[in-house]
Formats: sequence, structure tokens, C-alpha cells
Amino acid sequence: MTAILILGVDPGLNRCGWGLVASEGSRLSHVAHGVITPSASQQLASRLHDVFEGLIGVIEKYEPHEAAVEETFVNSNARAALVLGQARGVALAAAARRGLRVAEYAPATIKKSIVGSGAADKTQIAFMVKRLLPTAGEMTADSADALGVALCHAAHGGFQRKVGG
Amino acid sequence: MTAILILGVDPGLNRCGWGLVASEGSRLSHVAHGVITPSASQQLASRLHDVFEGLIGVIEKYEPHEAAVEETFVNSNARAALVLGQARGVALAAAARRGLRVAEYAPATIKKSIVGSGAADKTQIAFMVKRLLPTAGEMTADSADALGVALCHAAHGGFQRKVGG
Repeated sequence: MTAILILGVDPGLNRCGWGLVASEGSRLSHVAHGVITPSASQQLASRLHDVFEGLIGVIEKYEPHEAAVEETFVNSNARAALVLGQARGVALAAAARRGLRVAEYAPATIKKSIVGSGAADKTQIAFMVKRLLPTAGEMTADSADALGVALCHAAHGGFQRKVGG
Repeated sequence: MTAILILGVDPGLNRCGWGLVASEGSRLSHVAHGVITPSASQQLASRLHDVFEGLIGVIEKYEPHEAAVEETFVNSNARAALVLGQARGVALAAAARRGLRVAEYAPATIKKSIVGSGAADKTQIAFMVKRLLPTAGEMTADSADALGVALCHAAHGGFQRKVGG
């Protein structure tokens, strides 16, 4: 069985987390993770482009097979939704640039697949991500979230196994 | 006096309008306009990437000096703000990719600079864009909006004249 390399992304304009997980049968292993942090002194367009370029760099270096991003739930704050949407759009476009298929998972689905409960908090997610990927070492919350969505995609069988039946 | 080539963009996931205006002293002239229309049958990430690639193509072909995008006003519809934000983020990142500075103008500012009233409707904007750029020919509302924001940037003197005093 060939390992499938999954890129998880937690989009953000100030901190965009990314994490790579290899999935081979039921075996999951940590590959890499990091955070893209555009300089806040730049104009908005340049910061968005830094997120784009940072993700393109990760994709070119590690050549993942599939990507996964958290579905965004928007509350009543339309201004915040616009800002998040801008970073999210750039992350999705970067993944599509290299022909990656991008899966989207609702936050509750991610929580349930990692912690077993859709109501888990961020601390529990980070705890379980570290348990599931013991070689990952230190990480920020952004990286933990990114690895979490990659793990969720792996738990759901990814695209290739879905397609392959 | 050297002409400044200004790219105006009206971001959208289904239809992204773009328009190019040359500004030389007080003289304004139409250069080109068009609409990028990603296929709706693709996944979201691919559609966003089509917008990105389409704008990169326009920028590489015409080599504008500056870019301008309408500032987005968000009402209470956070879901719509997220969708618009995604397309907008990609448009801004595409402009920044080639080192363009990107100006943002509030809708009322654009209307006022073109029609003379911040409360003008879309029909009036399209009418005046065609009057100001008589050689532009036929255009859709998306292209008219894109040319409108480029005209607004020209009317405000652009970046270069601002910087040059």
C-alpha cells in the first residue's frame, strides 16, 4: 500500500498553519508542520500573497497528494468573515495551483474524528494531535489545527481510497 | 508626462471583472476590459485558482503600474461576506504577485468620483464609465464596475502622483 501525503491548512492572514501527515493503511505519521506569518506592516494584498507563496513553497517541497481545509462557520460577524474569507481563498487557490484536490470538513467533524466528540475544545484537539503524531514535537495551535484537519481527512479515507472504493 | 496604466478589479467567484485605464495628466483612455468566468462545475479551490490565473494573465499581458479594488462593505450576511472574501483575497494576492500596489476605495467614493454622487446606482455608473471611456465599446456590468474603480483611482491621482507630490 502506498502512503498518501495529506496537507492540512488552517488559513489565517496573521498566522496560516500547515501540517503534513502520511497515511498508509491505518498507519498515520507526522511529516512536517509550520506556520506562515506575513509581516503585518505590509499592505493587505502583499500579506495575502505571502500566504499564497508560503503554501506554494510547502507544496513544492513536500509534494502532498491531497489537501484538506476546515470548513468555515460564520457567525453574525460579517467583517470577520470577509477577512477570514480572503485568507481562505488564497489558501484554496494555492492548493489548486498544483492540481491538489481539496477536501473541506466542518469543525465538528474534525473534532469528532480526532477526539471522539464534536464539542471538543482546542486544547483537547492539540492534545490528541500530539498523541496521534508522537514524533511531531512542539507546535503552535495553528499547526495543531492544520495537522488536525489532515488527520480528519486521513480518518475519512482521503480522496484516493474513496475513489478507489 | 508618462501614462500610468491602472488595473481595476471587481472580484467575484462566478464573474470577476477587470478593466485597464491609461491616465496621462488629465487625459483618461480605455485600454482593455474583460470578465473571468471560472466554470461552476469545478471544486471551489479550482474556481478560485482560475480567478488568480486569469488576473495574472491580464497583468502579464498589459503590465499595469497600479491596481485598484473596491473596498467591500459587508452587511449582516456573513455567509456572503465569506464567499466574496475568498474571491477578493485571490484578486489581491494576484495583484501583489507582480509587485503592484493595490488601492482600495469605498463604493461611495467610487460613485462620487464618477457620477458626482455617492448614492448613484449601477446603471448610472455604467453610463458614465462609457461616457468617460467612449472607445471602450460594449461591456458587462462586471467590466463597467472594474473600469469604474480604475477611473476612481485615476481621479484620485494614483499612487505615483501622490508619492511624487
